[in-house]
Amino acid sequence: MITNNPVSLIRKKRDGDALSSDEIRWLIHEYTHDRIPDYQMASFLMAGYLNGLNAEEASALCDAMLHSGIVLDLSDIPGIKVDKHSTGGVGDKLSLILAPIVAACGVPVPMISGRGLGHSGGTLDKLESIPGFNVNLDLDRYREVLRAHNLVLIGQTEDIAPADKRMYALRDVTATVECIPFIAASIMSKKLAEGIDALVLDVKFGSGAFMKTEERALDLARTLVSIGEAAGKRTVAYLTNMDQPLGRAIGNWNEVRESIEVLQGGGPHDVRDLSLLLAGTMIHLGGKASSVEAGIAMGKARIADGSAFRCFVDVARAQDADVATLLAPDTYPTADVSMDVLAAQDGIVVGFDSYEIGMAGVELGAGRLKKEDSIDPTAGIELHVKLGSHVVAGDRLATLFTSLSKSASVRRISERIPRAIHLGNTAVKPVKQVTHVVNRDGVSLY
Amino acid sequence: MITNNPVSLIRKKRDGDALSSDEIRWLIHEYTHDRIPDYQMASFLMAGYLNGLNAEEASALCDAMLHSGIVLDLSDIPGIKVDKHSTGGVGDKLSLILAPIVAACGVPVPMISGRGLGHSGGTLDKLESIPGFNVNLDLDRYREVLRAHNLVLIGQTEDIAPADKRMYALRDVTATVECIPFIAASIMSKKLAEGIDALVLDVKFGSGAFMKTEERALDLARTLVSIGEAAGKRTVAYLTNMDQPLGRAIGNWNEVRESIEVLQGGGPHDVRDLSLLLAGTMIHLGGKASSVEAGIAMGKARIADGSAFRCFVDVARAQDADVATLLAPDTYPTADVSMDVLAAQDGIVVGFDSYEIGMAGVELGAGRLKKEDSIDPTAGIELHVKLGSHVVAGDRLATLFTSLSKSASVRRISERIPRAIHLGNTAVKPVKQVTHVVNRDGVSLY
Repeated sequence: MITNNPVSLIRKKRDGDALSSDEIRWLIHEYTHDRIPDYQMASFLMAGYLNGLNAEEASALCDAMLHSGIVLDLSDIPGIKVDKHSTGGVGDKLSLILAPIVAACGVPVPMISGRGLGHSGGTLDKLESIPGFNVNLDLDRYREVLRAHNLVLIGQTEDIAPADKRMYALRDVTATVECIPFIAASIMSKKLAEGIDALVLDVKFGSGAFMKTEERALDLARTLVSIGEAAGKRTVAYLTNMDQPLGRAIGNWNEVRESIEVLQGGGPHDVRDLSLLLAGTMIHLGGKASSVEAGIAMGKARIADGSAFRCFVDVARAQDADVATLLAPDTYPTADVSMDVLAAQDGIVVGFDSYEIGMAGVELGAGRLKKEDSIDPTAGIELHVKLGSHVVAGDRLATLFTSLSKSASVRRISERIPRAIHLGNTAVKPVKQVTHVVNRDGVSLY
Repeated sequence: MITNNPVSLIRKKRDGDALSSDEIRWLIHEYTHDRIPDYQMASFLMAGYLNGLNAEEASALCDAMLHSGIVLDLSDIPGIKVDKHSTGGVGDKLSLILAPIVAACGVPVPMISGRGLGHSGGTLDKLESIPGFNVNLDLDRYREVLRAHNLVLIGQTEDIAPADKRMYALRDVTATVECIPFIAASIMSKKLAEGIDALVLDVKFGSGAFMKTEERALDLARTLVSIGEAAGKRTVAYLTNMDQPLGRAIGNWNEVRESIEVLQGGGPHDVRDLSLLLAGTMIHLGGKASSVEAGIAMGKARIADGSAFRCFVDVARAQDADVATLLAPDTYPTADVSMDVLAAQDGIVVGFDSYEIGMAGVELGAGRLKKEDSIDPTAGIELHVKLGSHVVAGDRLATLFTSLSKSASVRRISERIPRAIHLGNTAVKPVKQVTHVVNRDGVSLY
């Protein structure tokens, strides 16, 4: 390990110069070992935020954060291990659908997911709405379930990328969160720690997404792919539109239920199409299909023959879930209150404020405003309209589900829904759900 | 006091927006009261370094730091109180000369000075080379000496601008020192705490100065004047050239001795001229002369009639000094070692590396490399050449004085001197010592 001076490295970044990979690694290593204080890292983070980090620096940052903790070695498990990561969006339940599809095609998916915070939900919270589902397996059981079912679904442990955890907490309080190289290094350090061989990324943009513009999403996608490929992992990113919520269900059990519908051959088209694209890409990267298109066809076949849904049920059972509700979703308890939100006028749905809809879901009990908040698995929103839907005054726009006891609170939330579903009187162009694909060869329009 | 969120203020500065004066004041107030942690201030400092602070923000920052501690009220002492501040340079002993000149003209000079750190010396260290000189007077004696002699010379106390002290320490370890609004607010917060009515600033540029370029020095001068005038104090700044050390003496007692020479009508021209310009400006601002030129003439008269030197001796005596050595400088102890540095070739002195010469002086014992280092009052350098001097091989370039016991160390230092005095073979243009004057009306060439 080289010896450096933190002030001279901060100065270098402040003056717009690039740090060497060794310098970045040294900085993160010393920070993680409490030999560089928060205030020096804070100053470095702001200098990096304002002056940027190049691809090599972002890779070194990711690598340093990755090696601050354990890196799983799954080389004893046969096959090309593939995972998927989404930057998060309202109604995004795709992991629940594509993971069993890909696993049913013989590609191992060692999936480590996060919880929801803010307006978009988290895969772990959705899984935990299934009674008994255990997302806290130890590493032996993690391997055992993966080996038996080609799929395992757990939460991030304390041992994975602790430097990322610490730096994220510091970024949060120093206004340095929204910086693409930091975001990319944070995402990739956790994903690379899973011991995967390839990764498919769903980078969302639009009102309901973390990246508000297509341009910034493309920047993030490029950085993510560059880090992944530099780490020797095949990495493909899709840019996808979050101008409307994905599917119709928002909430935890709601979304599990919609996922089951897709796995059983039904469900909303947008959810089904995007799940199949991502799954097809994973199947292709996993070496089980000669092209993405062949992978999609394979995925469809696994839905049709019931094996994808069977895989989901088997993994849930292997992870301690009582699968009765998966097999008969109607038996699941219902929310105390359900309330229809009606259209006040005729019109065509021309736009959504997905962020607002996501936040309404959170406030109904489907998510957390603070880390400590608990989640109501039955709370959420069912949308009855999508972009381009024609509505007549009195039609249902959405149904809200909640166990909030104060009817005034529910009414206040319900009043926000019509404002977040924009009605016009001209037909809308169909939205292009996927706009770009980014891989090691560069960026292409999709 | 308004309530703010530190993250939103950091974000504002990060995004290039200006903070309101209230927001700046809140930030500094909360930081000083330990309600904002170092890491948030570090992030703010870096955002400010890279995105800048406008004149209003710099004023608010200065004002907040000023009011973090005591602000002396000298309104019961008659007269317009005037002080001078220099950004520091090698051989800069001007305070010792101009303060008694101005005081002898009837303008009260309540001078609070700092210690040397790095390559340039500090007024306090020079004063303390006078046996017994006490720079730590309490506030009652401070007033008493000022009232009796129109002059008092002390060091900064813990009570003055504690926020500046804390922010300076943080800037030092977060690579955010060299930022003009921060530098200006730091300087002015300490000067305004003295209870002065007007201020003359000597902003130096060149190899031996903190500001390496004339452009940055001009920027700093403008900011200093704008803060001073916004605080209701008449403020005039001169831009002065530090491409060669000031005068011939570098060191502590060395410089006191050269100051006595000037106060007695002799001494090097550059020291004498600049002291008189700054003194004349102070006398004018102090209301005792109708113009700077009239002030200069008054100052010259106070040198000629001996009253300026007498004032210096009287103040030294009032501050507990044994003034025998001031009256008979040849009786001062000499350094253990003195060593001449000779020219190796013929030539004309075309340039100095003043920083190198300053650092050589520090290493001989005249300054500190670390805060804890002690100072040898007799150590230093006597230069025998100035820009434009013609030298013949074997001529003395400088004489070094030190009490370092290792002759190898002294030899190593002495070898650096010829490299810092550049000899050429073409005549040099005379250096313009003062290039600009900045006041409330703007910038003029001098």
